[in-house]
Amino acid sequence: MDHHSAGEVTAPAVSELDPPNRTLMGPGPSDVHPRVRRAMSTPLVGHLDPSFVELMDEVQELLRYTFRTENEWTIPVSGTGSAAMEAAIGNLVEPGETMLVPTNGYFGGRMAEMARRAGGDVVEVDAPWGEPLDPADVESALAAHDPDVFGFVHAETSTGVLQPDVPALTDAAHDHDALVVADTVTSLGGVELRVDEWDIDVAYAGPQKCLSCPPGASPLTLSDEAMEKVLSREEAPRSWYLDLSLLEGYWGDERAYHHTAPITNVYALREALRLVAEEGIESRWRRHERLAGALKAGVVGMGLEMNAPDDYWLPSLNAVRVPDGVDDGEICQTVLDDYDLEIAGGLGDLAGDIFRIGCMGHAASPANVVLTITALGDALATAGADVDPDAGIGAVREALR
Amino acid sequence: MDHHSAGEVTAPAVSELDPPNRTLMGPGPSDVHPRVRRAMSTPLVGHLDPSFVELMDEVQELLRYTFRTENEWTIPVSGTGSAAMEAAIGNLVEPGETMLVPTNGYFGGRMAEMARRAGGDVVEVDAPWGEPLDPADVESALAAHDPDVFGFVHAETSTGVLQPDVPALTDAAHDHDALVVADTVTSLGGVELRVDEWDIDVAYAGPQKCLSCPPGASPLTLSDEAMEKVLSREEAPRSWYLDLSLLEGYWGDERAYHHTAPITNVYALREALRLVAEEGIESRWRRHERLAGALKAGVVGMGLEMNAPDDYWLPSLNAVRVPDGVDDGEICQTVLDDYDLEIAGGLGDLAGDIFRIGCMGHAASPANVVLTITALGDALATAGADVDPDAGIGAVREALR
Repeated sequence: MDHHSAGEVTAPAVSELDPPNRTLMGPGPSDVHPRVRRAMSTPLVGHLDPSFVELMDEVQELLRYTFRTENEWTIPVSGTGSAAMEAAIGNLVEPGETMLVPTNGYFGGRMAEMARRAGGDVVEVDAPWGEPLDPADVESALAAHDPDVFGFVHAETSTGVLQPDVPALTDAAHDHDALVVADTVTSLGGVELRVDEWDIDVAYAGPQKCLSCPPGASPLTLSDEAMEKVLSREEAPRSWYLDLSLLEGYWGDERAYHHTAPITNVYALREALRLVAEEGIESRWRRHERLAGALKAGVVGMGLEMNAPDDYWLPSLNAVRVPDGVDDGEICQTVLDDYDLEIAGGLGDLAGDIFRIGCMGHAASPANVVLTITALGDALATAGADVDPDAGIGAVREALR
Repeated sequence: MDHHSAGEVTAPAVSELDPPNRTLMGPGPSDVHPRVRRAMSTPLVGHLDPSFVELMDEVQELLRYTFRTENEWTIPVSGTGSAAMEAAIGNLVEPGETMLVPTNGYFGGRMAEMARRAGGDVVEVDAPWGEPLDPADVESALAAHDPDVFGFVHAETSTGVLQPDVPALTDAAHDHDALVVADTVTSLGGVELRVDEWDIDVAYAGPQKCLSCPPGASPLTLSDEAMEKVLSREEAPRSWYLDLSLLEGYWGDERAYHHTAPITNVYALREALRLVAEEGIESRWRRHERLAGALKAGVVGMGLEMNAPDDYWLPSLNAVRVPDGVDDGEICQTVLDDYDLEIAGGLGDLAGDIFRIGCMGHAASPANVVLTITALGDALATAGADVDPDAGIGAVREALR
């Protein structure tokens, strides 16, 4: 290397990692549980170490518990929630097949995008942003288009809408021989979700929402029937990285090398799922409902309006109408600057119309609810909105009692 | 939820995370630096937080330094090294285009697999496993096939071979108007690599090798010319998750939402790259050469043979011939059981013929070299191989002096 050592190059000087101390009540990532963060500082073992193979079994068992499924094909995908989403759609949709997707939020649009890239044709079932799908509309779309795959979003992060009565959708789809893919990114571990009982064929999620785990290894589950379809494809999926028939070699009985698993993210997910198991999945759903209920009480108490009626309120992501005369971006900036608190504005059809306030996992706590209502009330009042911050915080106290 | 609360389901009981205390001297992941592990326990900020946007700039600057490039398009891909690899190939190869790949190791085969899934045609330039490509063969293959893209592996993890004289390959490719993709998974941060000076168009790597960082966010760099090709594709890449024209929106000037970045992995990569900058990239290359040199001295000193001659010895991954009468799998198991040390056997054409011993990043240390030579000498002698463990450790002492 001597011929190069004459002029050593200058290295950039970058200071010690010291991010601000945020409270994350936006659409995710949410505050990570301290035990999960600690797990991430654990020294690594190899991705084929016998101890890691055991740990993979544990993670799969915990994921099954959390998804409420017996699906053998339940794994963390090595990427963020969108990677799990593309693994689901890219493997399930074959070139020339048709996928039915919803138009009632940002993530239905992403489903369409991924289905097209898989070589599929996309048809749509409509509902306005901020509303759930109507089972009758789904039934009509299924009858009209006869799709191979039907996707829906159980918990729409862009609109704060929970899709109620999932079995009405899955029954309709199965009557038309369509497999059902559910986006459960913002519901898994926070909102009632029963993959087997509700007959969902494929569900994917992100760890950085109600599981309080950093993004990087993302839950995915497939029924035997769905996996059978994946394994009998005529043409290989268009991504090697996300090819479930290859991942089967690693996460299945063989435990053969496919790619180097993100060891630390799997450690983190395991710890996050242990916390779910310790709390009990149903208790955890109730805690989200109770704490997000207090948040909602505070929002309504100060004089604001929820975007979704109670029938399809999504506890993990609360869409709150932006009051007249207020700029949502300015309010988000104010609470970030003054309270180190992250909340978000709307997207797409609801841009400028709503605040999106998460209440997820470890962050679904009295402390975070109190902070959020206090900060939001203060920022809105200062901006001249017609709100009563004291009544808001009073309603929270009442709800938490 | 009352109708479901009658029978609470039983949660799996999974014990505290407590993996064995391994020393990782296999093909990766390697031992993670304690500062990097500590960085991973840092509380998160949001992926659009102003502080995170600043931190993204820092990571990009540090990556450019480490790759020795001025490429604007230098980012961590949200996945493991194979995700960065598929991002490179899946974006650069358009349907109907031709990619020239090498056959001299496992990862050339993976390149072929990914190029085909991108819709490309694959042609090959041959060399035996355990040898580098001959520039004359590359030249002939370029002339014969006129490929759009030429891929090669700078540091073949499956064979312990370093491709020498990279400019001979890139010059030939550019003479034939092919863009060059380099697999630098096992060289980045450990072995001399000069992306700009060597005229490499696209390079990708893994963080879990010579950067001593857990897998999960993986370095990728593209020249302006390569990125121009990506941005002017006729058809969108076949993966939405890995579509660089969309990632451009997030990592480029706009900083618009594409997917939730793996915050903690980016924290880790930043810290790992800070360690590179503190040490100095060229000093780091020299340290790898010195420590792996001591490892090699120990191997040869005890009477074993390196698989690669010195001309294309890869310091970060040492391929050692398995001596006669010994089973490589048993030796790997013995050093794992008796010394908590991970090394690996061969793959593919070299299965059973070589041990693969990494010497990467933080793990390229006197302590690890001493442990490895001691453990390997002990296990081989116990298995009845004709080796002299004392001479091995003596040669290490001599080399480290």
